[in-house]
Amino acid sequence: MQKEKVCSKKKCFSPEVIKRLSLYLRDLKNLQKQKVEVISSDEITKILDISSAQFRKDLSYFGEFGKRGVGYEVSSLIRELEKILGIYRWWDIALVGVGRLGSALLGFSGFPQFKLRITAAFDSDRRKIGKVISGVEVKSLEEMPAVIKKGGIEIGMICVPPQFAQSIAEKMVGAGIKSILNFAPVSIKLPAEGIYIASVDVACELQTLVYFLNSRR
Amino acid sequence: MQKEKVCSKKKCFSPEVIKRLSLYLRDLKNLQKQKVEVISSDEITKILDISSAQFRKDLSYFGEFGKRGVGYEVSSLIRELEKILGIYRWWDIALVGVGRLGSALLGFSGFPQFKLRITAAFDSDRRKIGKVISGVEVKSLEEMPAVIKKGGIEIGMICVPPQFAQSIAEKMVGAGIKSILNFAPVSIKLPAEGIYIASVDVACELQTLVYFLNSRR
Repeated sequence: MQKEKVCSKKKCFSPEVIKRLSLYLRDLKNLQKQKVEVISSDEITKILDISSAQFRKDLSYFGEFGKRGVGYEVSSLIRELEKILGIYRWWDIALVGVGRLGSALLGFSGFPQFKLRITAAFDSDRRKIGKVISGVEVKSLEEMPAVIKKGGIEIGMICVPPQFAQSIAEKMVGAGIKSILNFAPVSIKLPAEGIYIASVDVACELQTLVYFLNSRR
Repeated sequence: MQKEKVCSKKKCFSPEVIKRLSLYLRDLKNLQKQKVEVISSDEITKILDISSAQFRKDLSYFGEFGKRGVGYEVSSLIRELEKILGIYRWWDIALVGVGRLGSALLGFSGFPQFKLRITAAFDSDRRKIGKVISGVEVKSLEEMPAVIKKGGIEIGMICVPPQFAQSIAEKMVGAGIKSILNFAPVSIKLPAEGIYIASVDVACELQTLVYFLNSRR
C-alpha cells in the first residue's frame, strides 16, 4: 500500500521528510560546486528556503549534525545525507510507457547525482520497440519480467495511460519490483505486503497552488 | 518562499493535505464513472489505499462529511471536495521551457477534470517558437510578460534547465504570476511575499523509494 510513514532505526516519519532531505542534498551539492565549505544554520535555511525549525527537525530523526556556533561543514553534511538516503550504490530503474513523459524521464539529468539510472524501458507499441532513447533500448512488455529478474531491478516507474497502470504494477511486482513511482493519474492497489508505491500527479500538485490562490482572495 | 503550511478559515496544515484531497477527488470521480453512488468509510479508504484515520483527519480540517453508519454519498463528497479545492472556475497556466518534459505536460490528460489548462507556452529556442503543441502555440520569452498580464494568468510552470529557473521565476512574478510549480532540479528563491512555490523533482521522489528499500534490508 501507499506508505503514510517510513521508519529509521529510531523513529517513524512522513516520506516527506526523505523528500526534503533529498532537496537539501541537491542544494548542498550546488553549494559545494560554488566552493562553499562551511555554512551557518541561518545561511543554509535561507538557501534551502525553509524555516530553521523544519531543517533541524528533519535532521533530528537521524542524529546530531553541525556544531553550535560553528555551523555545518558542507562536505560532511553531504556525506551524512548520502548515508541516510542510501546513496552508496547505483539503483537501477525499469520504466514502462515510453510516451512523451516516459521519454522525458529517460533523458532527465537529475538522476545521476542520486546514483539513480533507468536501465530498462518497455512499451507495448511496436513502433517504439527497438528504438534507443537516451541510451536505453525500448523493449516489448513481454520481455519485462525476464529483464527485471535478470537485472535484479527493484524500482519501477509507470508512465502508461491510467487504464493500464494497475495491471503493469501487478506484472512489475510479479517480476520482483519492490517499489513503484506511479505517474498515471489513478491509484494503484497491490495486495502484496512490503511493496512501496509513491505517485506523482502534476494536477494534484497544481491543486495546492490553486488552493493557495483561493485562500488569499 | 516555499510554504510549509497553508491555511483554511479554521486551521493551518501541510500542503500535503491538499494534495491528498486532490487524489481523493480524482479517485472518487473514477468511482462515479463506475456508477457507484454511496460508499462506506471502509470501502472508500480501501479504494483510496489510505488509512481511515488519515482520511478522516484530512477531511476534518474543513468540516463534517458523511453520515455515521451510512457512509458517503459519492456525488456530494465530490461537490464538497471541489468546493474546498476551488474547482469552480478554470485556472490558466503559463509554461516556460518546451523541451521533452514541457511538451509532455502540454499534452497531459489529467488537467481538465481539475479545471486546469495550459494556455500559454514559451521557449527561448527560435526553432520551437511558432510551433503548436497540443493546441498551444509556443511563443518567445520576450512575449511572456505581456501574455501573462493580458491573460491575467496567475499560475506558472517552469520546465527549463536549472541554471535558468531562478531568472524565469523572477520574470514570471514580475508579470503577475502568483504561484509557481517548478520542475527544474534547483531551489528558487523569491523575495516577494505572497508568492507560492511548489516543486516536483522526480529524483527526490525516487529517494523515498530508495530509502524504503534500504530500510527493509
